[in-house]
Parts: sequence; structure tokens; C-alpha cells
Amino acid sequence: MNQKEWLVLEKRVTGWIKEAGERLKQSLSAPLEVSCKSAHNDLVTNMDKEIEKFLVGKIKEYYPGHKIVSEEGFGDAPDSTDGILWYLDPIDGTINFVMQQRFFAISIGVYENGSGRAAFIYDVMVDELFHCLAGNGAYRNDVRLAPLKKVEVEDALIDLSATWIKPNRRIDQDVLTEIVRRCSGTRAYGSASIELAYVAAGLIDAYFTMRLSPWDFGAGLILIHEVGGVATRADGTAIDTLSRTSILAAGPALHEEIAQHIGRQVAAGKYLNEPD
Amino acid sequence: MNQKEWLVLEKRVTGWIKEAGERLKQSLSAPLEVSCKSAHNDLVTNMDKEIEKFLVGKIKEYYPGHKIVSEEGFGDAPDSTDGILWYLDPIDGTINFVMQQRFFAISIGVYENGSGRAAFIYDVMVDELFHCLAGNGAYRNDVRLAPLKKVEVEDALIDLSATWIKPNRRIDQDVLTEIVRRCSGTRAYGSASIELAYVAAGLIDAYFTMRLSPWDFGAGLILIHEVGGVATRADGTAIDTLSRTSILAAGPALHEEIAQHIGRQVAAGKYLNEPD
Repeated sequence: MNQKEWLVLEKRVTGWIKEAGERLKQSLSAPLEVSCKSAHNDLVTNMDKEIEKFLVGKIKEYYPGHKIVSEEGFGDAPDSTDGILWYLDPIDGTINFVMQQRFFAISIGVYENGSGRAAFIYDVMVDELFHCLAGNGAYRNDVRLAPLKKVEVEDALIDLSATWIKPNRRIDQDVLTEIVRRCSGTRAYGSASIELAYVAAGLIDAYFTMRLSPWDFGAGLILIHEVGGVATRADGTAIDTLSRTSILAAGPALHEEIAQHIGRQVAAGKYLNEPD
Repeated sequence: MNQKEWLVLEKRVTGWIKEAGERLKQSLSAPLEVSCKSAHNDLVTNMDKEIEKFLVGKIKEYYPGHKIVSEEGFGDAPDSTDGILWYLDPIDGTINFVMQQRFFAISIGVYENGSGRAAFIYDVMVDELFHCLAGNGAYRNDVRLAPLKKVEVEDALIDLSATWIKPNRRIDQDVLTEIVRRCSGTRAYGSASIELAYVAAGLIDAYFTMRLSPWDFGAGLILIHEVGGVATRADGTAIDTLSRTSILAAGPALHEEIAQHIGRQVAAGKYLNEPD
């Protein structure tokens, strides 16, 4: 597509995502009364599916030649990055959606022949849209995001789940111990797309996970790159955007320091296993 | 004070805290440009002090006989809980205030002869005031908070810093391993008063820390109690509201399960040290 078509796409997707956000907000007004857990789960499932159907319908209507990588099964499960691919998560942060009615996002990333072109991460409840067209700058609503600054580990806020520093199958619990000890603080919000957007916006300095699906990170990676950040697998190698993957995202210097630390730990015999 | 006087106090403090919040918001509009770290630290120090001075001034003006326990040194450092004590933190979540310009709160708790009577935790940037007069119900803005529901560990969101599950001086890193592994997820927001308010509001199910100061938890404990929750030290014993302390806060059943788990770990020889 040419630049003008990308600008049209940006406008369209912004409209769709706001409409979808409105539906999600409205869905919360009544069911907040629900106390039974299975009903809570049904609500999530229904809203996940409803929002994905709505967005897939729009994409198919306006861009019938494009393919969709999505969570709830209404997409296409493409096996190559050729052409234009949409990475779509209707509700990223499902537990937050159910328990907190906040800290969840609609995440849409659009790639052309494997290159990130457009990203939209919409934190519904605070009406905060992180977005960019690659090369045009990244934005939080109307405010342009600054390029990531150099941050030392000692000054860094690092976002990671406790899972990855306790016994688990993916990474030796001690690989990140030294980083956690040295850093300024850790955070965990429970929505990967918001957490990647926060790195892009400089609200946190690094995000680490051993297991994320393409629809979770598709948009976030584009935002990270747009502000000069780096996102790789935990071992520093390139991310395959069609597979589940580990992710380390940060500004270049901080990313390098953490990736080198992980590399030394692995060289010393500690395990690091990519998701199946 | 009689009930009518407490209602007057509630109205007054709500007004003060909103005015203080407005000042904090306004302080962010210009200095967000500041990039130098020492200036960032100065900003925090200045705003911490400015807000504490403002609030201490109001308390001293309207309640000259009361004592104040506060972070920045404008209070009274009382050595007994006799009479009426105010626990005041002008900015709880200082790192968040500087780095994120969100997730920080003004926290004010008022105790009478050691009993929590009034609590105010104001998440400034989302304009969300968690508050209660003991016995009158707890509220998030105008919405009354429900009593805490019974939650199993497996369904629980538990808020704790990575610090307490990695090597540290206060608690053996393995004491909570099993709880972290079994729970539904962990969160960490970096503002103790907001995290305690989130437990009271059911947004998270438990909050754990090994080190908190009276001004950080004074208000939060009152909210937790008002919704039927339990807050103790990590070993299950009573909190001394004049000292730094560990805190485990949750609904009664979840609190008991976690406290008993910790008790078994300590009985098996793992260390647990209260702050000095």
C-alpha cells in the first residue's frame, strides 16, 4: 500500500478501535454485578469473541486481500509473512478485564511483508491510544512520544511477571536475579500490549517475558521500534512474528546490558527455553 | 470526636486532598520537560514537601490538638497512639510520580486512640478517591465497595514486589514461592496505598510487603478493615501503627491460608525479619 493508503488505514482503525472500546465499556456496566465465576468467564469469552468478530469483519470488508493473526479463531492462521498481515487481540489482559475492569487493551498491529507498518494499542478504560505509522513517529493520543533515553540498570523500572524469577520450565529462576536486585524497581500490570506501550512511552524501561503470542506483541513491537527501542527474544536473537516467543524490550543500551547478562548466565549453564 | 464531627472532617479532608491533587497535576505540566535526574529528584522533593506542608497546615489549623505522623518531617513523630493521630503521605509512589506521572496517591488515615476512624487514598491522575469513615462503608468515589469475597489462592491476583521473592534481608526468597506458583497471577504497581486500596476494592486479592512505613499504610489498613479484610504482619501478628512493618492484607480466608503457609515455612527454618 502507498503512504496515503496507510494514512487512510490509520484513520479507519482508530475509528473501529474506539467503537470496539465503547462496546467493551458498555459491557462492563451491567455484568459488574455478576458474582458467579462461570458467568464472569462467559462474559469474557463472549466479549473477546464479539470484539474480534467485529474487528475481523471490518478488516475483511475494507481489506479483503489481507490476512489476520488473531486470538479467538476468526482470523486466518497464515503460515508466511508475505503480503499484509494484521495481528489482532480483542482483549489483551483478560484477567484484568474480569477482575479489575481496567488495565486491558485492544491491540492491532499491521505488517507488510514482515515489516511493521501500523500499530494501535488502546487502553480502553483510560481512553489512551498508543499508535504509530512506522516512520511517522509514535503517539500517546495526540502527544508524540520521545525517543527512548539511555537508562542504567540501577535507574530502570523493569516489568516482568514473578513467574520468570521463580521455578518454571522456560528460564532458570536465577538468570534475572542480579538484574532484579540492581534495578530501581519492578512492575507488573498483566497486559503485555500495555506493558510494551509503556516501554515505548518511557513509563517503564524494560519489559521481559518468556511466553507471548503474536497477537499480544504484534502492535507493541512496532511502537518499540518507532521510538528507537529494541525487542528481541530473551537470548537476543530475532523474534519470529508468527510464533510464540520470549521477549526482551528496552532502549538499546539497557537491552544490550540485560541481553548480555542473560547470555553470560546461559553460557554458565543456566537454562533458557523458547516456548513450544 | 462525635459522629457529626467525623462527617465534617471527612468533608474537609476531601476538599483538601482534591486541592492538593490539583496542585500535583499542575506541577507535572511544565517539569515533564526536565530530563536531568537531579532536577527530577528536586521536583519530587519540592512537591512532597509542598503538599505535606499544605496538608499539615490545614490539619494544624482545624485540629490543633491532633498529632501527625508524616513522611517529610513537618509532622510530630508521636510516640503513643493516644488521642487523634493523622497518618499522612503527600505522594505515595514517588518513583511513579517522577517516571510515569501516574500511579501515585495522597494517603491520609486518621486514628482515635489507636482505632482507625477515617481513610482517604486519592489516586490523583485518575481522580479516584478511596475513602471511608469506619462503620459507614468504604467507597471508591461515590460507589460503595462490596465486602471482600472468599477467594482461593488459585484464583487470586497477588500484589508483591519481586524483591521479596529474590535474595533479601527480610524474608527467605523461598517462603512465598509456592504461593506465587499457585496463584492466578502477580501484580506490582509501586504505590502501597493504591495497592491496599485495590485489595479493599477487590481489584487484587492480596498485598504483601516486608517493609512499609506508618504513613504508607495508615489509611489503607482502615479501608481493608471496613470491607471485612484482614491486615497483619507477615507472621500473622498485629501491626504496630507507629513502626515500620511487614504487611499481609487480604480477605480473611485468603489471608489465613497465606499466613499459615508463611508460618509453616518459618517453622521449617526459613527466616522472616521485621524491619528495624
